[in-house]
Order: sequence, then structure tokens, then C-alpha cells
Amino acid sequence: MTTTCDITDICTRAKAASHVLAGIPGRTRNKALLAAADALEAGASGILAANAADVSAATARGLSAAMIDRLTLNDARIAAMARGLREVAALPDPLARRLATFRRPNGLVISKVPVPIGVIAIIFESRPNVAADAAALCVKSGNAAILRGGREALSSNCAISDILSAAFASAGLPADAVQLIRDTDHALVGELVRKEGLVDLVIPRGGESLVRAVMESARVPVLKHYNGICHIYVHSDADIPQAIDIIHNAKCQRPGTCNAVEKVLVHKDVARRFIPRLAKACAKWGVELRADAAARAIAPELKPATDADWSAEYLDLILTLGVVDGLDAAIAHINRFGSHHSDAILARDDDAAKAFLAGVDSAAVYHNASTRFTDGGEFGFGCEMGISTDKLHARGPVGIKELTTYKYAVRGNGQIRK
Amino acid sequence: MTTTCDITDICTRAKAASHVLAGIPGRTRNKALLAAADALEAGASGILAANAADVSAATARGLSAAMIDRLTLNDARIAAMARGLREVAALPDPLARRLATFRRPNGLVISKVPVPIGVIAIIFESRPNVAADAAALCVKSGNAAILRGGREALSSNCAISDILSAAFASAGLPADAVQLIRDTDHALVGELVRKEGLVDLVIPRGGESLVRAVMESARVPVLKHYNGICHIYVHSDADIPQAIDIIHNAKCQRPGTCNAVEKVLVHKDVARRFIPRLAKACAKWGVELRADAAARAIAPELKPATDADWSAEYLDLILTLGVVDGLDAAIAHINRFGSHHSDAILARDDDAAKAFLAGVDSAAVYHNASTRFTDGGEFGFGCEMGISTDKLHARGPVGIKELTTYKYAVRGNGQIRK
Repeated sequence: MTTTCDITDICTRAKAASHVLAGIPGRTRNKALLAAADALEAGASGILAANAADVSAATARGLSAAMIDRLTLNDARIAAMARGLREVAALPDPLARRLATFRRPNGLVISKVPVPIGVIAIIFESRPNVAADAAALCVKSGNAAILRGGREALSSNCAISDILSAAFASAGLPADAVQLIRDTDHALVGELVRKEGLVDLVIPRGGESLVRAVMESARVPVLKHYNGICHIYVHSDADIPQAIDIIHNAKCQRPGTCNAVEKVLVHKDVARRFIPRLAKACAKWGVELRADAAARAIAPELKPATDADWSAEYLDLILTLGVVDGLDAAIAHINRFGSHHSDAILARDDDAAKAFLAGVDSAAVYHNASTRFTDGGEFGFGCEMGISTDKLHARGPVGIKELTTYKYAVRGNGQIRK
Repeated sequence: MTTTCDITDICTRAKAASHVLAGIPGRTRNKALLAAADALEAGASGILAANAADVSAATARGLSAAMIDRLTLNDARIAAMARGLREVAALPDPLARRLATFRRPNGLVISKVPVPIGVIAIIFESRPNVAADAAALCVKSGNAAILRGGREALSSNCAISDILSAAFASAGLPADAVQLIRDTDHALVGELVRKEGLVDLVIPRGGESLVRAVMESARVPVLKHYNGICHIYVHSDADIPQAIDIIHNAKCQRPGTCNAVEKVLVHKDVARRFIPRLAKACAKWGVELRADAAARAIAPELKPATDADWSAEYLDLILTLGVVDGLDAAIAHINRFGSHHSDAILARDDDAAKAFLAGVDSAAVYHNASTRFTDGGEFGFGCEMGISTDKLHARGPVGIKELTTYKYAVRGNGQIRK
């Protein structure tokens, strides 16, 4: 398929820009972010006009109301984008950290210094605000960004990207610091994620199908967030009213998020006291409980869980409930069926908590708190590019520090190797 | 193709072992390494017998003398393997580090704690000592290892692996902590590197063709070392005798290594003084110099460099020499043609050195020292699994710390998200 968009050219220009960006002081990067925030507000009417065209085309194409809501911008959402840029500008410079310096017996002084990753490609779906958020995090961390949004948001993304690029350039960043791919041909994503040596990292921001599609063709490293099959394990000595409150928060506060709880495991010794209360609470909250055989022996009115329920990410007001023989069984179950995202133990016994926190192989493990806290803002990172369910490079919330890497700067006075 | 080797079963057992290993104290991991060192020495005759069979088969198949040398074990090489295991045992526990702890305004205490990566698959070529080295680094860092060696070393690898496994088990590690794939069918590598969710990291230890073959089929993250196209840039104010010494070391001490220098760039203002001396020295060292037009204008007797020379990794006594207009041109050239491994500036001017160290996008950047120092031992890591030319997760020497990742352990007392 022929296309008017030259991915190699875009990537080559991004790589050149990344080398310039790596040397631009934090002060200038922050000034560029503030200029972009002002420019987004000043250019709101143009963005809204472009967005209105996207929305009417999407409506004509019969997209779902939820999709159209995600696509739609208004003054408040543009203000939120501008505020996001200003908040990122106010964060400490991730490139100004000191990682380590050590002197070797031969007199070499080796410094481990933070550096940008280089060129980051962000592939996202319908929300046009991702263009501004992702560009801000890349610029803050000294990376060049290549943005590739969804077809339905192309006009909005073009309007936002034009404003950002002009503002960044006016503040002294290279013209190609942030580029948008303005052609929505699907084949271009496949080409982009295979540009080894030009693109250093790909971040797909979207549902599991997008992530899997990127993974299928990628040769470049991918920082991925698959899904959140989060568990809460209620230990035998748990504070039951507190457990009910935490499960309520973890399930109901925002059921569509990746850190919402999907499974509850309960120790057999507390099951008779706990399950009837949870069943009653779920009925009140409008949460459907799907229970294993042991739980249904206690509360026969519950719907039975199937095997598939244990691996399902509902993103909805549904919970799977199971009874386990104890702590070890809970840990083994979570390591087998979970998605290594966020899992919690509710227990008074500190030894049980320690064993759970050590034994569960997830990005975030909790004792007596809601899984909903796995979030860059809640962790104090100030922002996030997403939540990594990978184990390499970054795990959990990906903030601006996680968008950097390091190099070793070695200073000598003529040392040669013996 | 049918095979007798069940990769899914091997990976599943490795994953289960990894969950046990993650909870085994450093003391026990070290005891296992020391037991394995003793066992290798005690079992030397069996290893040598197995190795003799490999060597005679390789000789019969007409393998090169260099290949046969790499394959051959003797008492000294077995003693070196045992010493390596004891040295790794003596290193600090990478899982005992404290990374960060922070308290949030809502009272949550978030600790970033080091954890093993999980299951690491190591794919290596002819040297059987890699089996012991790689297993030791994995066990030290709490990872389960799956080893896959070359066909020519299968008997040797089996003998070593059997001894390691027995010693590790006797010291209390899970039986599947280290497994060797005993079937050399090439298709199994393709299967192994696609075991997402079971294998957490693949490390190919071998030449560029092995790394590229792994990358072509991998779905699991790969920590890779492509090649070392290392540069030395001689600035206008360089100390010329020191520069000649450093280039001699970087080229000649071990020309076949990835951190040996392959390219020399010289500032035009010093080219007339420097090039004749380098040409004379290279003639003495037996190093072939291939020069660009500007260098040949000064030393017309030099062989001309072709375009291909600038991208070549010789691993031999050959150097490409070019003249550059200055520091910026040197940095741009290295970022374009280098392999982001190790590059040096030789200069008296500290500002020039700073600009070079900041501007060159390589794992290790040097001022007035040989590129040969990019090495886990020389960096003080005590050992290494290889040198990463990747930018994600680990860059440069990969020691035991780089074989770990982290998780967030969050302790609360009932916190829910507002």
C-alpha cells in the first residue's frame, strides 16, 4: 500500500531532535511546557472547531456514546490539558538527579548519569488529550516524541499538535521534538514499531487489543500495560468492616480502571463470617458476585463462577469470589491467575502481610489499603504515562523518571587496561 | 517437527521455581553457589570426559581451531569456573538493597523493593563455562535460569548442569532453579523466546547473528548486546603520546572484544601532528589503518577507507581513521555510525570533554581513558552477564543488580482512594 507519509523520515528527524533535546537545560524544557499551556488556552477555539468536525464524523459513523464522550473536547478539558502541562513543568527535572559516582582503584571516576531514552513513539486511541499529556512527559524528560492517535481524533490531534509544536519551537526546542503521524493507515504503526535504531521505545496507550497488536509486530522495546486482574485477599484475622470498605472502594470507585479489584479471595477460617456480609454489601452496591463452590456452600444464592471468571478483567461491577485454604494458597492463586498489577492482603497479622508482600509477584502489593492507589499521582510522581505490567525497566506507574535511562561517564587521566 | 523436549513444561517449572527462589535468603543462595563450586572441582573428571567427547565430535565435523579452543575445557578452566562461583557468592546481595521508601499524605508508606526478574533464559554458543557463569549470576540474584547452549557443547553442558543442579538442590534451592535444554533442535529456541508470562527475559550471549535470530522471533523482552563499534576522538589539544598509548591499549590489548576501538577520529587542527605518529605506531603494532581522504592527504601511503568501513566491527587489528572539523562533527559522526557502546574523547580541555560526555549517546563515554574499561569487573560489579547496548532496563555492563527489578510494597491501615 502506498502512502504519503514517510515513517523513516519522521523517525530520522525525531532521532536528530532527540540528540539536541538531550542537551537542552531543564529551564528551557519547562519554559516550553508553560508556553504550550498558554498556547493551548489561546488556541482553544481552533481546537474545539477541529474537534467538532471529528465528533460529527464519529457520530455519522455510528460510534458508541462512550467513544464519542472520550473523543469530545470542551473548554474544561482544554483547561485540564493546559493545567497538566503546567503541573509537569513544576516537577523536578528527572535529568538533574545524581544516580551514583564511584572511584576505581586505578583512579577512574565512573558516574552513572540519567539521560533521556531518546525517541519515544506513543500509540493511543480516541482521547485527544493524550497527545498533550504524552508530549509533555516526553519533553520534560528530554525525549523526542512521535505521536500516533486514532483515526476518529485526527483533526483534533492535528490542531493540538500544531499548537504544541509552535509553542515548543518558540521556546527553543528543536522543530521535530514532537511530531504527529497525520496518516491513519494501519500499516504505518507496523512500520513505526520496527524502526530499530531510530525509535527507542514504543508505548501503546489503550486497551489490550491495541497492546497485543503492537507487540505482534514490534522489534523496538515496548513498555506495555496489558490488563489489571487485581486481587484482594481477606486473611483469617482481617478487620471485616474495614475489608468491606476497602473492597467497596477498590471495586466501585471507578470500576473501569486497571487498578480496580476483580477478584476476592477469603481465608476459609473467616469465610462464614465474611461472605454473607460481602454478599449483602454487593447487593447494595449493585455488584454481581460470582462465587466458587466453597463460597456458594455458605451463600447458595450467589451465581456460580466459571473457570473463565478467574482470568477475566471485567472493568465492570462484577467480582469473582473464592475461598482459599490459607495464605500460601492465596499467593499461589494470585501468581497464577493475576496480571501482576496490584494485589492486596487485608490482615491484622504483620507476618502474614510480610509473606504476602514478599510472595506476590506484582508491580504493587498492598497491606490494608485499596488497590486503586496504583497511580502516578497517588504515588507522588505528579503524573504518569501509564502503568507498566512489564518487569523490565519500569514496573507500576511510569512517571518522568521512568522515561529516562542512564549512561556511564568515565573520567580518567590516561588509564589503560592491564 | 516433533521433539522429545517439552519447552512449556520446562518454562512452567522454572516459573514455579522462581517464586520459591524469590523468598530464599541470600545466605542460602550463597551457600548453594559455594556448594556448586566445590562440586564442579570434585566432578572435574566427569566434566572433562564429557568435554572430550564434544571436542572429538567437533574435530570430526571439521570445526575451526578457534571454535574448538572455545569449546575445550581443562583443569584450569574448571578451576576458573569454580573460582567464578565463589566470587559471585562473595558479592553483596542485590536483593538486600534499599531503593526508596516514601510516606504519602494519606499515611500510606510506599517502599520500592528490589526483586528478582523471575525466569531468565540464556542462549549461548560454544563456551561451556557460560553455563556455570550464567547460572551463578541468576541464582545470586534470585532468578530461575533456563540454559540453552550450542549443539557442539551439549555433553559438556549436560555434565556441568547436572553437577550444578545437584549442588543447588543439596543446599536447599528448588530442583528447577537451573534447567538445561538438552535438545539442540533450533525450533526450540523460537518456542522458548515466545513464552510470554513464563519467561521474563531472554539473554542471548553470542555474536550478532545469534542476537538477531533471537530478536526475529522473540515476544519476551531481550537484553541484547549487538556489537561494539567503539570510537576514540582525538581533540585538538590532546596529549599526543598519551593518545597513542590509549589507542594502542584500546585496539591491541584484546582486539576481538566488543569494547576494543574500531574507529579513530582526529580534529583537523591536530591531524598533521597526530596522523604520521599514529601511522608509524600502527605499522609497529601490526594494525592496518584505513584512512579517509583528508587523512590520506597527510599520509598518502595509508589504505583508503570505504563507506562500509565506518559501520564495520572488525574485531581484528584494523582501524578506520578520519579527520573531523571539530568536536560537534565528532559527536554527530559517533551518534550516527557508532553502536552506542563505548566511545572516548582524548582532550586536555575540560569543556570539550563535558560536551562530548553529554553529547555522545552511548552506554559508556570516556575522557582520557581506554574504551577497554567497559566491563563488569573493571566497573567494580564483580562479574557480568554481558554488556547491554540496549537503552531500556540496563545499559553497559550487566551485573547482578541489573538482573533484578523492583516492586512497590504499600502498607496502609485502611486507606481508600477519594
